[in-house]
Amino acid sequence: MDTNLELAAFAAVKNLEAAGLTLATAESCTGGLIAAAITGVPGASAVFRYGWVTYCNEAKERELGVLPSLIEEHGVVSEEVVAAMARGAMRQAGADVAVAVSGNAGPTAAEGEPPVGTVCLALARRGAPRPVHTETLYLPNQPRNVVRNLVAMKVLQLIGASAGQ
Amino acid sequence: MDTNLELAAFAAVKNLEAAGLTLATAESCTGGLIAAAITGVPGASAVFRYGWVTYCNEAKERELGVLPSLIEEHGVVSEEVVAAMARGAMRQAGADVAVAVSGNAGPTAAEGEPPVGTVCLALARRGAPRPVHTETLYLPNQPRNVVRNLVAMKVLQLIGASAGQ
Repeated sequence: MDTNLELAAFAAVKNLEAAGLTLATAESCTGGLIAAAITGVPGASAVFRYGWVTYCNEAKERELGVLPSLIEEHGVVSEEVVAAMARGAMRQAGADVAVAVSGNAGPTAAEGEPPVGTVCLALARRGAPRPVHTETLYLPNQPRNVVRNLVAMKVLQLIGASAGQ
Repeated sequence: MDTNLELAAFAAVKNLEAAGLTLATAESCTGGLIAAAITGVPGASAVFRYGWVTYCNEAKERELGVLPSLIEEHGVVSEEVVAAMARGAMRQAGADVAVAVSGNAGPTAAEGEPPVGTVCLALARRGAPRPVHTETLYLPNQPRNVVRNLVAMKVLQLIGASAGQ
């Protein structure tokens, strides 16, 4: 585990704990990296409940309740789909905060897919005025593991900032 | 990600791919580390379908169908529970191979829990003569991340060996 990820995960866990919030994760291209960083922090069980690695579309639909029509319409790498993944994870886990990631970390993109390095992420928070924050990162010309680490870092920072508010 | 984990994950993915097998993971104390290593391999989507990070007991019960009475009777860190987690993950994901981990990576153990460093793991394989392989590792006096990494390494090697048979 990258030291910077460990530090960002530590801050996220401590902020969640101080705020009395629980967390769920739903990951596609980061593939468990965010959950692994969070659960690397001693005492993470006070805040972390459930995580999903929904790598295939069927997993996003069956485990998180993402509508096949949403994936069909917007594509699996879209802010609409990650928002639905985060909402589904928050609901299914009964968590206060949920994050979701879907993207293409490379090395190749199929026809019709967004280019390599395109990653969408979402943070849902129960009862917040703006229920789901979403954004799209574009990190081209990077090796797969660099893309995954940069995205995990960004999401861990978002969790920490959201819980610290 | 530790380089040795990356290499073991590479071998596991290549062996699964060569054997035409798909994989699911169900992780408690490794918290997504196994899924993250597997999905770090380019082309992992050919073999990896679903992963769960079932950190709380409720997640093991609701997502993987582990019976509360099984956890009550044997404890959550037991070969019986990881066998049920692996079977549940294999069934739920429709995967050919599923692995499961439950243990205490420390730094502390509550009263009545197995000592820090006790980790149970399981590998289920569809249609194999012996359906679920289980074992218990005892890795005392190690930092949390060392326990997690050693367990992830062991499980990745088991996947590679099972797929290579």
